[in-house]
Amino acid sequence: MTAASCIFVIFGGNGDLARRLLIPALYNMSEADQLPERYEVIGTGRAPLTDEQYRESVKKALQLKKSRSSAALDEFTAHFHYFIGDMSQVAPYAGLKRLLEQAAKNQGFSGSVVFYLATPPDLFCQIPPLLKSSGLLEQAPGAWRRVVIEKPFGHDLNTARELNRILLDAMNEDQIYRIDHFLGKRMVQSILPIRFANTIFEPLWNRNYIRSVQITAAETLGVEKRANYYDQAGALRDMVPNHMMQVTALLGMEPPNSLRASDVQSEKLKLIRAITPFDERTARANAVRGQYTQGKIGGITYPAYRSEPGVKPDSTTETFAALKLSIDNWRWSGVPFYLQTGKRMAFPLTQIVIEFNSAPTHPLPQNLLTLKIQPDPLISLTLATQATEGGHQLRQARICFNYDENLKQNDIGRTGYENLLSDLINGDATHFQSAEQAEAAWGVVQPALDFWEENPSENLEFYPAGSLGPVGARRLPEREGRHWLLLESAPAAAPPLGERAA
Amino acid sequence: MTAASCIFVIFGGNGDLARRLLIPALYNMSEADQLPERYEVIGTGRAPLTDEQYRESVKKALQLKKSRSSAALDEFTAHFHYFIGDMSQVAPYAGLKRLLEQAAKNQGFSGSVVFYLATPPDLFCQIPPLLKSSGLLEQAPGAWRRVVIEKPFGHDLNTARELNRILLDAMNEDQIYRIDHFLGKRMVQSILPIRFANTIFEPLWNRNYIRSVQITAAETLGVEKRANYYDQAGALRDMVPNHMMQVTALLGMEPPNSLRASDVQSEKLKLIRAITPFDERTARANAVRGQYTQGKIGGITYPAYRSEPGVKPDSTTETFAALKLSIDNWRWSGVPFYLQTGKRMAFPLTQIVIEFNSAPTHPLPQNLLTLKIQPDPLISLTLATQATEGGHQLRQARICFNYDENLKQNDIGRTGYENLLSDLINGDATHFQSAEQAEAAWGVVQPALDFWEENPSENLEFYPAGSLGPVGARRLPEREGRHWLLLESAPAAAPPLGERAA
Repeated sequence: MTAASCIFVIFGGNGDLARRLLIPALYNMSEADQLPERYEVIGTGRAPLTDEQYRESVKKALQLKKSRSSAALDEFTAHFHYFIGDMSQVAPYAGLKRLLEQAAKNQGFSGSVVFYLATPPDLFCQIPPLLKSSGLLEQAPGAWRRVVIEKPFGHDLNTARELNRILLDAMNEDQIYRIDHFLGKRMVQSILPIRFANTIFEPLWNRNYIRSVQITAAETLGVEKRANYYDQAGALRDMVPNHMMQVTALLGMEPPNSLRASDVQSEKLKLIRAITPFDERTARANAVRGQYTQGKIGGITYPAYRSEPGVKPDSTTETFAALKLSIDNWRWSGVPFYLQTGKRMAFPLTQIVIEFNSAPTHPLPQNLLTLKIQPDPLISLTLATQATEGGHQLRQARICFNYDENLKQNDIGRTGYENLLSDLINGDATHFQSAEQAEAAWGVVQPALDFWEENPSENLEFYPAGSLGPVGARRLPEREGRHWLLLESAPAAAPPLGERAA
Repeated sequence: MTAASCIFVIFGGNGDLARRLLIPALYNMSEADQLPERYEVIGTGRAPLTDEQYRESVKKALQLKKSRSSAALDEFTAHFHYFIGDMSQVAPYAGLKRLLEQAAKNQGFSGSVVFYLATPPDLFCQIPPLLKSSGLLEQAPGAWRRVVIEKPFGHDLNTARELNRILLDAMNEDQIYRIDHFLGKRMVQSILPIRFANTIFEPLWNRNYIRSVQITAAETLGVEKRANYYDQAGALRDMVPNHMMQVTALLGMEPPNSLRASDVQSEKLKLIRAITPFDERTARANAVRGQYTQGKIGGITYPAYRSEPGVKPDSTTETFAALKLSIDNWRWSGVPFYLQTGKRMAFPLTQIVIEFNSAPTHPLPQNLLTLKIQPDPLISLTLATQATEGGHQLRQARICFNYDENLKQNDIGRTGYENLLSDLINGDATHFQSAEQAEAAWGVVQPALDFWEENPSENLEFYPAGSLGPVGARRLPEREGRHWLLLESAPAAAPPLGERAA
C-alpha cells in the first residue's frame, strides 16, 4: 500500500548524508518502483543554490555509479527543488510552508510529507518545534506528516529523554521515525522470519538449549573523518544502545502476536527492559573497552587512534567495547549475551551466533546457527556428522545459505536505506526505534558509561590495529568456559570443515 | 582395533556377488588400509579352477576399473586361493579345515576366519550346520570365527524363524553377521550421529514437532536379470523388512546408552517391536502395491513387468509398494511413517524426509530435513526466510551439505561393502541385523503379505514405467492432508528456491 504521492523535505539536502546515502537510496527506489507514483524532493540548506545548481550537485553524487544513464538522471533530478534557509531559525518556515502548499495544490498531491533531518544532531531539538509552530506537522485527512531522525538519539540517557520530550511535544510518537540503517540490512530483517516462520527454532530458542548468544560488529575502518563526533561518543555509544540493542531485542523477544509494527515494537521494548542494567560492579566485570594502537591490516600500517587527525592525543575514548548482558526472564536467565564491536579489527565481520548446548556424551563440536549480516549475508548451521565413512568419530559440517548468491536481486549500489524509506512511506514502523526503546537501551548501558567517565583510564585496554581487540574481551566469555565463535576463525580451529556446502 | 590377521573364506568365490561387489570391496579396503596386516582370501566353488586361474578371474573383475594398475592387482591377487568343492555336501569340509589350519600355522595367523556366504539363499540353511559339524566355528582364544549371510533373511516370518533357528544351532548370535549393504551407505550410517551428536534435533524429534517421516527408495531399473528371485519376492519382501525397516529403526529409536553395537541393536529392536503389525483392515487401507507397465524413462521405452524375461505373463508380483506405518509409543504416536519403494520409477532417488509441523500463522512453507542417501549423499534443511528484501512475504530456502563434494574421500568405485566388512573384522555389529530384528520386521509386514497372497489381484494397481508409482500411493498421505515430499520435485512446486546454497 504505497502512498499515491509524497513530498520529501531533506533538511541538510546538500550535505554528506543526503548526497552519499539518502539521494542514492531514493534513486534506487525509483528504479525499483518503491516510490509513490508522484513525488517531489525539496532539499534545504544555507548555501545559495538555484534549483538547477542543486540538481547538478545531485547528479554529480549519483554519477559516482557509472551505470546510471544521463537520461535517467535528468528524469530523476527533475523532481528536485532547493529551498534556501537556516532551518534552525523560525524565519524560513513560512516560505517552506507556502512551497509545500503550492506543490500539493498544483500537482494534486495528497499533502503527505516526510521531513528528513539529515543534519547534525543538535538540530534534532531545534527543527521539530519550529515545524510544529509553523503548522507543518498538522495532518489533514489522508495526508500524513512524518519526521525522520538519524541516530544518535541522544548522547546519554538524560539527553535521550530530553530529545524524546522535545519530539513528543511537537508531534505524536507515530509521526516520529528514528531510523537506524542497521535495521534495514537484509539479515537483520530476516531475524523475525527465521525465528517465527520456522517451527524448528522456537522450541530450542531458550535457556534449555542455548548456551550463549554472540553479536559481533567488527570493522577494519578507523575513525576516518568522524573524529569530531566519535571522540565524544566512543564505540559503545556509537553502536550499542541503537544497532546492537535492537538486534538483541529481535533475537531475544517473545513471539509477537503478529509481525505488525505495534506488536513487534512492544515485544522488543519488553525484551530491552528485561536486560539487567549495568551497575558499578558489573561495569567493572562485564564491560570491556579498548582503544586501537598502531598496527597492520593486510600489510598496511595504520596509526594509533590517538594519532588520528582530530583526536585528542590523550583521548580515553574507546574504539572497542565488549559487553556481557544478562536477560532476567524465563526464556534467557543464565544465558549470556556477548556483544562486541570495534574499529581497526582484523577483518570486517558483523554477525550473530547462536551457540547451542553440547549433546550429552558428545561435548564437541557444538551446533551453531550463524546469521552473518555483512560483508556477505549468510545463514549457516554447524552440524556434527561422521568424520569419516564408517567411523564413530565426529566432525563439524557447515551448511550454508548465501543470500547474495541465491536471491537474484540486484543489490549492487543499494545503500541499505531503501527498505526503511519504503517502510516509512507505507507507515510501517517495525524496523524503526520507539522513544521508549531508545530510553530503555540507554538505561541499560548508562551506568557503564558513567563508570568509565568517572574512571577514565582504569578500565581502558589497548589493542593493536588488525587484532581481535583487547585481551579483556577474550576473557569475558572464557572465564565462563565459553569463547567467541567467529565464522572466519572456525574453519581453522575446527577439524577441516565442509565449507559452504554446494 | 583392526584384527592383526584374518582369512576370508568366500563361498561362491567366483560368483556374481563375489566378483562384482565383494572382491572389489576387499581391493578398495586394501588400498584404504582397512584390511588386517596379514590376510588371505579363499574362494570356494564347484568349477575346477587352479589358484592361478582364479587369480586371473579376480583380476579380470577388478580391471573393469581402469585406474587399477597391473602391479597393484598382482600384489593383491597373490593373497587369493581357490578351493574346489560342493559346499552343500559334507565331504569337502575336512579339506577346507586342513587348508585353514595350514595357513594359520605357516604364516603365524591368529586363526580368525570370516565365512562369507555369497551363495544362493537356500545354502544359508545348509552351510552353517556343516561348518559346525566340521568344527570350523569353534573359536580358539584370540581367534574368532564369523559367518556372513546376505539378505533375504527368509522369505517370510516362518522361514526367517527357521533360518535363525538353524544359524543359532550352529553358532552364537555374536558370530552371525546379517549383512545389508544399504546400512553401509554413508548417509544411513550418518543417521545416528546426526540425531544424537547434535543437540538441536533431539528436542524436536517427536510427535510434538514432526508431522510425518517419509522414506523413499525409487529406482529406474526394472527387474533386470533377477526375475527368478524377484517374481517370487516382490518389492515389499525385497526392500521393506530389511533396508527400509532398518532405516525406520535408526530414525525412530530412542537414544541408546552409547553408540556401541549392543546398545544400538537393542534400541533398534525396541523400535521395530513398537510398530503396529498390519492386519487385514490396515493391509487394505495402508499397504499399496503396484506393478509397472510399459512406459518411457528419458525417452526410452521399457517393457511391462509381465513382459520381462523370466516373469510369469500373469504375475501379480508387486514392483512397487507403499506403506503407512504407525509406531505406538510416546515419541511417535500419531506420526505417520510413509515408506515407498519401486522399480522403473521416474528417477533414482533414495531419501529420508523429516517433515516438521508448520509454524502458527505461517502454514507454509514447512521445515524439511532431508537426508538423501543416493544417488548423491546430501543433508538439506528447508527454512522459511524473507521472500524479498524488505517484505513480509516468505519463501523456502534450502541449505545443503553435500557429502561427496565436501568430504574429500575417494569414493569412486567403492561398492558400499567396505565399511561393513571393516566393521565385521573389528567385531562391530552396529550396522548388521540381529535375529530378533529380522523376525520383528517380518512380523510387521507378514499380515500384509498374507492378505496380498490371499487376494492376488484385488489390491494390485498398475503404473507406467517412468511414473511416480500407482495412484493409491499418492492417496496414502493425501487422505491425511499430507503429501510425498520428494527432493527432486520440491523446487518446481515451491516458489523459486535457493537451490543448493553455495
